[in-house]
Amino acid sequence: MPTKPKKIAYLGPAGSNTEEAVIVHDPSAERVAFPSVRSATRAVENGEADEAVVAIENSIEGSVVDNLDLLIHDSKLLISKELVIPITHCLLLKPGARAEDVRVVYSHPQALAQCKRYLETRFSRASPVATLSTTAAVAQMMAQLGGDAAAIAPKRSAQIYGAAIFEVGIQDHAGNATRFVVLAQHDAQPTGDDKTSIAFSFAEDKPGQLYKAIGLFATKGINLSKIESRPAKESLGKYFFLIDFDLHRLDPKAQETLESLRAVTSLLKVFGSYPRYRPPK
Amino acid sequence: MPTKPKKIAYLGPAGSNTEEAVIVHDPSAERVAFPSVRSATRAVENGEADEAVVAIENSIEGSVVDNLDLLIHDSKLLISKELVIPITHCLLLKPGARAEDVRVVYSHPQALAQCKRYLETRFSRASPVATLSTTAAVAQMMAQLGGDAAAIAPKRSAQIYGAAIFEVGIQDHAGNATRFVVLAQHDAQPTGDDKTSIAFSFAEDKPGQLYKAIGLFATKGINLSKIESRPAKESLGKYFFLIDFDLHRLDPKAQETLESLRAVTSLLKVFGSYPRYRPPK
Repeated sequence: MPTKPKKIAYLGPAGSNTEEAVIVHDPSAERVAFPSVRSATRAVENGEADEAVVAIENSIEGSVVDNLDLLIHDSKLLISKELVIPITHCLLLKPGARAEDVRVVYSHPQALAQCKRYLETRFSRASPVATLSTTAAVAQMMAQLGGDAAAIAPKRSAQIYGAAIFEVGIQDHAGNATRFVVLAQHDAQPTGDDKTSIAFSFAEDKPGQLYKAIGLFATKGINLSKIESRPAKESLGKYFFLIDFDLHRLDPKAQETLESLRAVTSLLKVFGSYPRYRPPK
Repeated sequence: MPTKPKKIAYLGPAGSNTEEAVIVHDPSAERVAFPSVRSATRAVENGEADEAVVAIENSIEGSVVDNLDLLIHDSKLLISKELVIPITHCLLLKPGARAEDVRVVYSHPQALAQCKRYLETRFSRASPVATLSTTAAVAQMMAQLGGDAAAIAPKRSAQIYGAAIFEVGIQDHAGNATRFVVLAQHDAQPTGDDKTSIAFSFAEDKPGQLYKAIGLFATKGINLSKIESRPAKESLGKYFFLIDFDLHRLDPKAQETLESLRAVTSLLKVFGSYPRYRPPK
């Protein structure tokens, strides 16, 4: 019996960086675009979709902070996988258009900012014009009469809209990457090389309590790969701490540590365990 | 002899949220707009300006991550003050225009996103259109013939461009605030209620070393008000840690702690000490 393809919810529209991440995650899945990250995660909660792919560290498609807050406050889904996708901005033209005719370049303001030096050098006679998303930039360029418009967008948008790729990787700084997580009803089984993401907070703000909390990991020799404080929404001066550590939550050492942590925190949320991302060779 | 007004550099254009922060910081200063945060900080380094005001936690005007990286890697300036400014989006119209005629609303994509529910409820017949900044949104609305355009921008842009303020505080979530820092050649003198911001990294990624580092603060009873890890640019898996602690760096306890920290880290950068922000009563 052939298995039914998975349904994966993501922040649309088609052609976005998040859609690229969905394809890298599972090329054979059915992809369903949603207008917001929250509606995508709700679809998984309702059983309409199997998984949602959400950007966690991304400078273009919506604020990561919002997605972290969604995980902390508004979702019961678990992280079952992480993916790191390099950001590759492309300069797109209408088919047949010539670079020397370009007078306007459409894109999301942050994509325009990330390609500023390139545009100043190669398209000094063109003006940057903002669009709501990189995908909207391609749509607007294609809808234009004549060939004096260009767009900055991911490669995949070119395929979807039939645009021509003039140049790939035009961002001013290399090494820019976006981290996505796959959210589902369950997290992943242990593989031997796993990470766990958690958030916690304390009833009051006292010196030394964060130290004691991460000491629980240190005394067990558990490495922390990320640590971040986020202001709790209800009041200034209260914090949520977000930690990623290098062990599956089902490992006995991790279980003991999480139990001790629960005893010293006022809130502890485990977002799930998943294989550590390793770039393809 | 009257004192010469201070010259303060900021990310322009005039009317931006950063300009509002400059006015809150020093209403009598001469404000100089720069096209980038880096050019604003360079003006202070060169002595062209006395101070630069820079957003540190802000979802609209450029990525905070970029500003943190600038502090870590590319600037010798010190933090002399912090400011927390509530984000207040306003719905602006051309003078004499009527809300019921509005068919298009201009703003930066993140401001449009932060006011999404308001627009759906109050301007359901209008389409959102992206601009490069909230200020550009007002300029574009004012340049339009007729009165079917609106803009979302800070109050101050309305004053600068002569736009009418239709509604103040239209963001969907209250409690949204931006944290700015004032950068200068020197940090601030102790006041008795101060914070210090630092960044550090380790030569290799070993379990427990962050624990030991923050233990230096805990054993002296120094409270940490912020902790964040940022991937170091050169390689994946290497981190910078950013910490704010509640003490002036000239306090003997802080000096001892920083000295011990220097001994266990491969890099330690002190961004400066400054009075802790207290909201006006």
